[in-house]
Amino acid sequence: MIPETIQKFIEVFSKLPSIGPRLATRLGFYFASLDKNSLSEIEKAVGGFKFLNRCERCFFFKDKNKKYCAICTDPRRDAQAIAIVEKETDLLSLERAKNFKGHYLILGELAERGTLETTQKLRLQNLKDKIKKELNGKVKEIIIAVNPNTFGDLVAGIIKGEFKDLSEKITRLGRGIPTGGEIEFADEETLRQALERRL
Amino acid sequence: MIPETIQKFIEVFSKLPSIGPRLATRLGFYFASLDKNSLSEIEKAVGGFKFLNRCERCFFFKDKNKKYCAICTDPRRDAQAIAIVEKETDLLSLERAKNFKGHYLILGELAERGTLETTQKLRLQNLKDKIKKELNGKVKEIIIAVNPNTFGDLVAGIIKGEFKDLSEKITRLGRGIPTGGEIEFADEETLRQALERRL
Repeated sequence: MIPETIQKFIEVFSKLPSIGPRLATRLGFYFASLDKNSLSEIEKAVGGFKFLNRCERCFFFKDKNKKYCAICTDPRRDAQAIAIVEKETDLLSLERAKNFKGHYLILGELAERGTLETTQKLRLQNLKDKIKKELNGKVKEIIIAVNPNTFGDLVAGIIKGEFKDLSEKITRLGRGIPTGGEIEFADEETLRQALERRL
Repeated sequence: MIPETIQKFIEVFSKLPSIGPRLATRLGFYFASLDKNSLSEIEKAVGGFKFLNRCERCFFFKDKNKKYCAICTDPRRDAQAIAIVEKETDLLSLERAKNFKGHYLILGELAERGTLETTQKLRLQNLKDKIKKELNGKVKEIIIAVNPNTFGDLVAGIIKGEFKDLSEKITRLGRGIPTGGEIEFADEETLRQALERRL
């Protein structure tokens, strides 16, 4: 009873993260009700992604007509501090915190194994080469900003070993009670870390 | 810092119903990470809407290569019972209830004024013409299934007047406590209606 076009849309969009069949249906009928101009705006917005690719330095997304991403080409940013993150959205979150002014490396989401995948190894190798060739073989700080869980800890250990001669400091993000959080509701592991790393 | 393509996408998708900037950003970065095949599937799903238009009888959406919608052309459905609904998604909800087997008229969402807009008047005129020309001037029942609020009540009154000679019965959906609901939490107006329309 639902027209094929809308049905197909619902099928495709239901599979997207945070969009279930309910929201996909709602969107489908909303799109169906739009005029040609609004539709073409949406089509253009979706059609742009095929022209995106990744920065050759940090592997963040960049528009195809640019060689590096906006962060790697910003002269105000410090190439001597490099934060290694899993996802592009982790980079965005750190940027929102506004107190890191260095460069990044997007590693890709960690598998639940605690080891590195081939692409991840290649990206780390790329960073090593960059430090050796363009940054006199040593940077001031590498911040391993992968998620603080068992797999993150294992991978952080591996990265620490590989970069020990290429950076003066290798750090991880602080761990403890989130600001605004309550001690009463913190889980044991968080409290243990908060006690161990007390200020 | 976010590439233009993703930025533009976030801007356009943030304005869609139930999609705020947060979900639009998440989707944007998700799309950016997809391979060419998945992207082209999504582009196709979105690109189909320009080929949709409306059924000339009930104004529900239909694929362009068909003359009427799936409901209007289904011989098992009863043309003698017509439900007038505001939105396409209201039609879907009634279909899910599975006990109405008639035809529909999509009226379009009611303005918060209690009067009909020009398109809505034209659609009702279209229904009148259909009843006069194709259904011997009278149908068995018209169900005015607009939302049960002040504006819906006003518009239902108008429609009732206009169709009084064209249908044996003109009804509205029952009102009262929703099944599974609790009397304790029902608002006064709902309880008043539930008492007045007690079974």
